[in-house]
Amino acid sequence: MAEVVDVSPEVVVVRNKQVIFKDYVNGYPKESDMVVTSDAIIRLELPKNDSGVILSKNLYLSCDPYMRGRMNKTFTGSYVPSFTPGSLISGYGVSKVLDSTHPYFKKGDLISGPSTNWEEYSLIKNTESLIKIEHTNVPISYYTGILGMPGMTAYVGLYEICSPKKGDTVFVSAASGAVGQLVGQFAKLYGCYVVGSAGSKEKVDLLKDKFGFDEAFNYKEEPDLNAALKRHFPDGIDIYFENVGGKMLDAVLVNMRVKGRIAVCGMISQYNIDQHEGIHNLAFLILNRIRMEGFLAPDYYHLYSKFLETVLPLIQEGKITYVEDIVEGLENAPAALVGLFTGKNVGKQVVAVAHE
Amino acid sequence: MAEVVDVSPEVVVVRNKQVIFKDYVNGYPKESDMVVTSDAIIRLELPKNDSGVILSKNLYLSCDPYMRGRMNKTFTGSYVPSFTPGSLISGYGVSKVLDSTHPYFKKGDLISGPSTNWEEYSLIKNTESLIKIEHTNVPISYYTGILGMPGMTAYVGLYEICSPKKGDTVFVSAASGAVGQLVGQFAKLYGCYVVGSAGSKEKVDLLKDKFGFDEAFNYKEEPDLNAALKRHFPDGIDIYFENVGGKMLDAVLVNMRVKGRIAVCGMISQYNIDQHEGIHNLAFLILNRIRMEGFLAPDYYHLYSKFLETVLPLIQEGKITYVEDIVEGLENAPAALVGLFTGKNVGKQVVAVAHE
Repeated sequence: MAEVVDVSPEVVVVRNKQVIFKDYVNGYPKESDMVVTSDAIIRLELPKNDSGVILSKNLYLSCDPYMRGRMNKTFTGSYVPSFTPGSLISGYGVSKVLDSTHPYFKKGDLISGPSTNWEEYSLIKNTESLIKIEHTNVPISYYTGILGMPGMTAYVGLYEICSPKKGDTVFVSAASGAVGQLVGQFAKLYGCYVVGSAGSKEKVDLLKDKFGFDEAFNYKEEPDLNAALKRHFPDGIDIYFENVGGKMLDAVLVNMRVKGRIAVCGMISQYNIDQHEGIHNLAFLILNRIRMEGFLAPDYYHLYSKFLETVLPLIQEGKITYVEDIVEGLENAPAALVGLFTGKNVGKQVVAVAHE
Repeated sequence: MAEVVDVSPEVVVVRNKQVIFKDYVNGYPKESDMVVTSDAIIRLELPKNDSGVILSKNLYLSCDPYMRGRMNKTFTGSYVPSFTPGSLISGYGVSKVLDSTHPYFKKGDLISGPSTNWEEYSLIKNTESLIKIEHTNVPISYYTGILGMPGMTAYVGLYEICSPKKGDTVFVSAASGAVGQLVGQFAKLYGCYVVGSAGSKEKVDLLKDKFGFDEAFNYKEEPDLNAALKRHFPDGIDIYFENVGGKMLDAVLVNMRVKGRIAVCGMISQYNIDQHEGIHNLAFLILNRIRMEGFLAPDYYHLYSKFLETVLPLIQEGKITYVEDIVEGLENAPAALVGLFTGKNVGKQVVAVAHE
């Protein structure tokens, strides 16, 4: 809760808690790479004579693996610019409009966008990528996950990139994460055989018991990933949804079937090392005529309405489920973000700044 | 010319020169991995009461990089089974039918197929993959190259896998080889900007002067492949036709444009080393939404007539040219095949066993 600094008859002035990016990161990010501060003071009113501006209260912030790339000095490994040292962290989030001079976004609206600042209140001038949340009969935090970028990523990656067929064998790495848990469920609904890998017994149990994967394994307990894959896919893999990179990718390549498809969504195992591990088995792309394709959900936002029409009923009918790992309070946001890269989160990592 | 052993009124018996695969190969193949022998004796007549059999005189043999995979003991890196130690080498070739009990292939026909034995005369019982050569107003050896598997590989890889657009920037490695020289010429005819790499000044000159590439460079003289590519593609590469793998692929990955396409045709730089070099820059597949796809021409033989209809007029009108490196005599076949892996050949490597 923001500390009220001043309440005049016209306007409330509060301390605006913020998370500041300290400096560029090498290796794994640490909590100390960010600072939580309440130094900033914000007047909860809109600037006079300024149209198209929104004053928002931020509710949910999304922690996503791509944010690691934004912590690098050199612009590699990320498709959005690096964070600026001394400035706010930002990312996907859900907010409530407290006031607005924008013709479309009105006071009381719930909004979602990719450039939500990690602070309690924001003054939003660039509203280009904002979406108004129309369906509120689901948890609002879902718009950072199943109904947001990760949901679109799973949907687009599976249906647009991998062209699944009933009966296809599907392997998902980082399978209990924000994207993986959905890929597996989508593929099951489609009639595929689905196996996931994750990094703990708790996650593996989730995959099998909650998300309905056919099989799952803990990659940390497999000395030979190739053997693990051969055990689960004696006839090979038709579709690999790639979230991790590194040794897992190399093991997958030798286990792909002819005409297999690999949707390259992320390579989280590689984001914190200077030079990515070498992949040695790419010649199998030729041998088995494999297509490997990188993609980004934002390229497919023209499909967002169709996506919502598909997924909202699945949620409401209980045919699909979504596990979130919600941390309370902006002061805990740095730990939540950092935890993503060691797999501390179970399910989609969200920070609840406020609930309404 | 085969040594005649016996001529009775009915039948000619000759020594049949052959190239025998000695044993599985590690590292670079050597001439001594093969033996040329004239021990075998063949009666130039068809077996009695055997229908569907062809007696052929082999004219041209093709040396292709995929044959290296067949020299491995373990079935990796090749999509056809390994050669059998002590048995004949075989590959694509052009032959003349000396006699036939097959209803379709008649005496005097020219034929081409993927399982031509490296010997002067063959008795062919499995005619499944044989093609009858219909158009003979081009050099017949072309059916091992521009009008055979390498031609189809260039055609399919560029048009089916890479979906070129006029103005696309195209990079071809091993660009003066059997496939590369055609990819570049096809892409130029399509209105693309084409740069090729090769391993000698002679080959680079060929690319620019004979094949009409816009630019070319000698990769052996470039200490920094990334810098070389940046010099030739300041705005990045739309299409990469991958023939070599290894360091070149890693350098290409960081230079691909958004929505770039990589046709993975071969990785000749990697075929003679135990473990393929690690590729470190695959995360760029995500960053720039790159599609990378392995393919094999034999999957596309339903397009062969269309391909001939396209390419034959281009040859006849002089709009496309083809450079062959023809070695005379079966006894020189082992050296020709081995030379492929050190880049000794200039253009498509062919062995002429006989000319008619």
